[in-house]
Order: sequence, then C-alpha cells, then structure tokens
Amino acid sequence: MAMIKKHIRELVSYVPGEQPEAGSVVKLNQNENAYPPSPRVIEAMREFDGRLLRQYPDSASRELRSALASVYGVKESQVFCGNGSDEIISLLFKACLDENSKIAMPYPTYSLYKTAADMHRVACEFVPANGDFTVDTDRLLRAGEQAQAIFLVNPNNPTGLVLPVETIEALLKNYRGLVVIDEAYMDFAEPDQSAVRLIDAYANLMVLRTFSKSYALGGARVGYAFADDRFIAALDKCKDSYNLNGMSQRIALAALHDQAYLRTIVNRIRQTRDRFAGQLERCGFEVIPSQANFVLCRPRFAHAEALYRRLLQQRIYVRYFPVPRLDDWLRISIGTEEEMEIMINSLTSARAAFM
Amino acid sequence: MAMIKKHIRELVSYVPGEQPEAGSVVKLNQNENAYPPSPRVIEAMREFDGRLLRQYPDSASRELRSALASVYGVKESQVFCGNGSDEIISLLFKACLDENSKIAMPYPTYSLYKTAADMHRVACEFVPANGDFTVDTDRLLRAGEQAQAIFLVNPNNPTGLVLPVETIEALLKNYRGLVVIDEAYMDFAEPDQSAVRLIDAYANLMVLRTFSKSYALGGARVGYAFADDRFIAALDKCKDSYNLNGMSQRIALAALHDQAYLRTIVNRIRQTRDRFAGQLERCGFEVIPSQANFVLCRPRFAHAEALYRRLLQQRIYVRYFPVPRLDDWLRISIGTEEEMEIMINSLTSARAAFM
Repeated sequence: MAMIKKHIRELVSYVPGEQPEAGSVVKLNQNENAYPPSPRVIEAMREFDGRLLRQYPDSASRELRSALASVYGVKESQVFCGNGSDEIISLLFKACLDENSKIAMPYPTYSLYKTAADMHRVACEFVPANGDFTVDTDRLLRAGEQAQAIFLVNPNNPTGLVLPVETIEALLKNYRGLVVIDEAYMDFAEPDQSAVRLIDAYANLMVLRTFSKSYALGGARVGYAFADDRFIAALDKCKDSYNLNGMSQRIALAALHDQAYLRTIVNRIRQTRDRFAGQLERCGFEVIPSQANFVLCRPRFAHAEALYRRLLQQRIYVRYFPVPRLDDWLRISIGTEEEMEIMINSLTSARAAFM
Repeated sequence: MAMIKKHIRELVSYVPGEQPEAGSVVKLNQNENAYPPSPRVIEAMREFDGRLLRQYPDSASRELRSALASVYGVKESQVFCGNGSDEIISLLFKACLDENSKIAMPYPTYSLYKTAADMHRVACEFVPANGDFTVDTDRLLRAGEQAQAIFLVNPNNPTGLVLPVETIEALLKNYRGLVVIDEAYMDFAEPDQSAVRLIDAYANLMVLRTFSKSYALGGARVGYAFADDRFIAALDKCKDSYNLNGMSQRIALAALHDQAYLRTIVNRIRQTRDRFAGQLERCGFEVIPSQANFVLCRPRFAHAEALYRRLLQQRIYVRYFPVPRLDDWLRISIGTEEEMEIMINSLTSARAAFM
C-alpha cells in the first residue's frame, strides 16, 4: 500500500514474550514481578473516584514527578513520566536522534532498541559481548565515537549482568554523545549501581526506569526518566498532551509511597533467584550470574529450543531467543518459590528424558 | 542544547485548556463530558483485580477491538486502539506522512494537527473557512492535490459545524491521498454523519474516534480508529508494544457495553446545548450552530478576551483562542443544566457591566 512508508512496511516488529490464555500456567517469559503490587495500590484503586474519569488527567503528572524527585533526590525538572518506558524511548528518538544517524549498543541486549531505531531510520552499531557476556566497554566507546548515542541496559537484559556505576561514569567522562542507561531491573541489583546520582554532573546522560518490574505494575504502563532539565523539557515538548492516564498516575504514586513493600518483594525475589541459580547449576545448566529478576542459562543436556518446546507443552512459558549468541540459552523469569519449584522439577525430569 | 534536534527546540507546543486547581469552579474549557461515565465503568473499576497489574496488558487490546468492531459493524482488522486519539495521530504521521511533505486542512480547526505536523517536519496548508465558518471543500480538495493528506474534524472543533457524510464521500471520490476524519464529537451530531460506513469502499480513509468525549472518559486515555486493514496493520507496527494499559482497556469496554447510558447523556447534552445556544443569542451573542458538546459564540457587547478574563476572575473557565479568525470568539463547553445556568447568569451580568 503506497500510502504507508516503505521503511514501515519493511519493519520487523518487536516480538514480546507470548501471552498465554488463562489456565494453570507457569509464566516466566516476560520478567513480570512474581508478586502483586503493594496493598496501597489496591487501596488506591478502590478509593479512586471513577466519576473523575470524565476529566482529562494532569498532563504533566506533576504529583508523580514530584514524588519521584523526592524519592530519588533530584529536582522535579529532572524527571519525566511516560506511558511505559517504551514511550520514553520513542520520544528520545523523536527529540534527539536524527534520521540516518547511528546509535551504539552491546550485543546481546534488549531488542526493542533495534526496533525503535529501525522505526526512526537510525542505524545500530552492535558491539559483541565478551565470551562470558560481559560488555566490552572500550570497544563500545570506540563504536560510540561514530554514533550519536550509546544505549546500555543495566543490569543487561537478557543476561542479568550489571556494570558498576564507576564503569558508567568512566564512559560518560570519555564520551560527548548521548548516553542512555536503561535501569528497568536496577532495583534487583545489589549493591545498587544506579547512574541517577550522575545526572547533575553529566548533561548527556539519561536514565530510564519503570514501574513494570520491581513495583509489579506492568499492567499500568508507567515509565520514568531522569536527565538534565533541558532533555526533560525536550521530551515534554514531544509527548502527547495527556500521555499518562489518571489512574496510572495515582497507582504509581501509591506504589512509590510504599518503599518498605518494594524492599520486601525485591529481597524475596533476589533470594529465590540465587537459590534457583544454584539449583540450575546442579541440574546441568550453565548459568550467567544475574542481578535482575531473571536468569540466562544454557542446558548442557539438550538444545535450548528443544527444551523450550518441551516446557511449552507443559504450559510452562520461558523465553527462547532464536538469534545468534542466544539460541543455546533460555531466559527464565524469577517467579514465586512455588513456581520455581515446579520449574526445577520440570527441568529435572526433562534432563532425565533427554539424557 | 545541541543534542536536541533543532526543529524540536523551536517547536511551539500544543496548548491545552487550563486545568484549574480544585475548588468551586465551572470548567467549560476542554469539552469534557458534563456527566460521569456509565455506572458500568464504576463497577468495572471496583471489580478490577489490582493484583493482575503485575502482568503486562494484552498488547493488541483484542477484547476492546472486537467489541468496537461489533458495535460499529466493521471487521476487527479494521479497528485500532490507542492511548487517546493523540497517540493515533502521532502514529499516523510516523507510518504515513513523509518529512517535508504537506497536509491540507481547514482553518480554523483543532490545533493539535499543526503541532503534530511541526513535530514530524510536515508542512500544513490551511484553507480558510467561509465567513460563516463552513468549510470550503472545493478549495480544500484543490489544496489537497499538492498534499499527502487531508485532515478534517467532523463536527469541527472549535466551530461545532458538521459536514454531511455525502460531502465527505464526494471528497473521497475525488482525492487519491489520505483522508483523516476526526470524529471525536460525532456522537453529539444529529443525524449521525459518521464516515465509518465508508471504510470498506475507500482504502484511503481513516476515521478517528475517542472515549474522551461522549463516553466521558477523558481521564482514561482511549482513542480508536477505523480504516482499511493495511492501515491498521501499519499503526500496529509503529505503536509501542503495550500502548494501552489494562485498566483503560477494561473501562472502555464497560463504557462501550452501555450504549443506553451513552444515548441518555448525549441526548441530555444536546438539549442543554440547544437551550443554551438560544439563551446566548438572547444575551447578545452571535452563535455558530453546533452539533458538538460546545458552542462557539461571539459577544456583541464586549471584546471576547475581556469577557474571558472577567469570567476567569469568577473562576469560570471557557476557551479563548488568541489567533486570527477566533480572537473575537469564545468556545464554551456544554456542562450540566446547573453549570449552564451559572454561565448564563454570569454572562448576563457581564453584559450589564460592559454596556
């Protein structure tokens, strides 16, 4: 259809993990939180006056920005709120990245960046990770010199590996382009390696965050970003007037106000993750040491795709990426203790069946 | 800041109507519905299981698309759902409108189209309305010949004037570019002049709709569009994976299922509008005959801006547009009977004061 742009017709869409229909399913393929959101969220929903929905929401999400500024110790003018970090990524391309320019990022990483780049006719320079999946930051910096921006997911998805904030700062010191650090999973890392503390010192830094993972609000679509206030002002110019609906603003605020609950579920997920990683190793897997709410692991006893299909038949969903470097691996999100027990039992019997 | 694109730095943002802080205010400046959403919406909110928010929503809003298809008598593949029609407009530019191309539209109309065009480096050819604000469709068609698309808001904002569907069809018959009809206010028009019935016959037609106005859900941010399935597929490719949060999907569905309530509040608003228009005329206003939930009117006894400021001091919000053709006029949204009584009383005493 000639009316649709050629590069859009040819675009390969981002492929999210499957969403199974209801039923008794173990769903560990989208890095969703194992636990429900804070009871304060449930309460905020119950108390939300539905009659107010006839009015437009606050177009600037002011209350939420103000709360985020105070929790993270930054200025309100350094905070942006979006309809998921997906929207913020799109806006970043719109505001900052020229057509036919280039961005640099490690490979493998979150594949949405490539999709967003294709959509905006920006080229991607991928810097292969080392054999152990660690990021080659020297090579990334060299690639960055030919690029307008460097994108880093920290902890990285799908590896779960974290870069120390000192490494991020060294990169910032030596790079004049834009540096985007996506910290979707940072709350699961210990100790915290967040680059938020660097936004005052580096005007070329943008840090992305989300309520979808640690705050267990994937369904509410709320992402946020920290950066120099001129960057934030540019995103504000590019966003749709009312980009964040009224309920999601309220709900995110309630979640943010319950830091104790956040710590509780994050700690629980970390413990489950570390125990599960040990079980995986004993069960014949190579495991990448993860600081996120998932683990990347390679079955030594079978091909990953065969194992993935076997699990699928048992209605157990994990993530298999049929792409170079990753097609021997599975990414398994960390669910509840019970879910991980089902998982490990299923893997144990798979191992027996394959061997 | 060099990292931000020049045309974004220079961009003039869309200016929505002011959002007053709470308090006893008559707020008739954003064409919000005078009435709350359907009781089914309130019920759906109460029944929504907040624990589900830990999971991502359905990325394709399938249930909602399917319900819209059945209410409007189209195929599911001809329906798109977005985070307000704002998002759909952005996606349309992304998918279909080349940089440095041109779009044609009447003047005056909804100013967001100009902002969206500026953002995507698309030029706007404005075709001045006739003296009575009716659209000069012949001239629009001629302007369209040099453009990639024609945009029409029907009923138009801020005039409230409606074009018969036969006029839209004549335009479609004679135009090969894209025709976008924004029917945000069509539910308030009588008889219905919707172009939805034309989407099977014209592959270059896209009709935009929203839950923000007639369904009283401005706070939930749900827009939808009808078009040829290839267009819809292109929008799907360009949208963020999870563009519509889970609660808004559920709430819109509940509102859609209560067509009886929709008819009731729409009829009430139409009656209030027509009575109010008569009162305005008797009170010294020129009034454009409106088929929407607002009226455009010109005070004969004072300058519109002076009247606007006087109302503001009384905490009564209406819309004043300081732009050519409109700077003698006020756009007043239709509120409840009580609000319109306050409004007319206030205008009556203003008239006495100015004369």
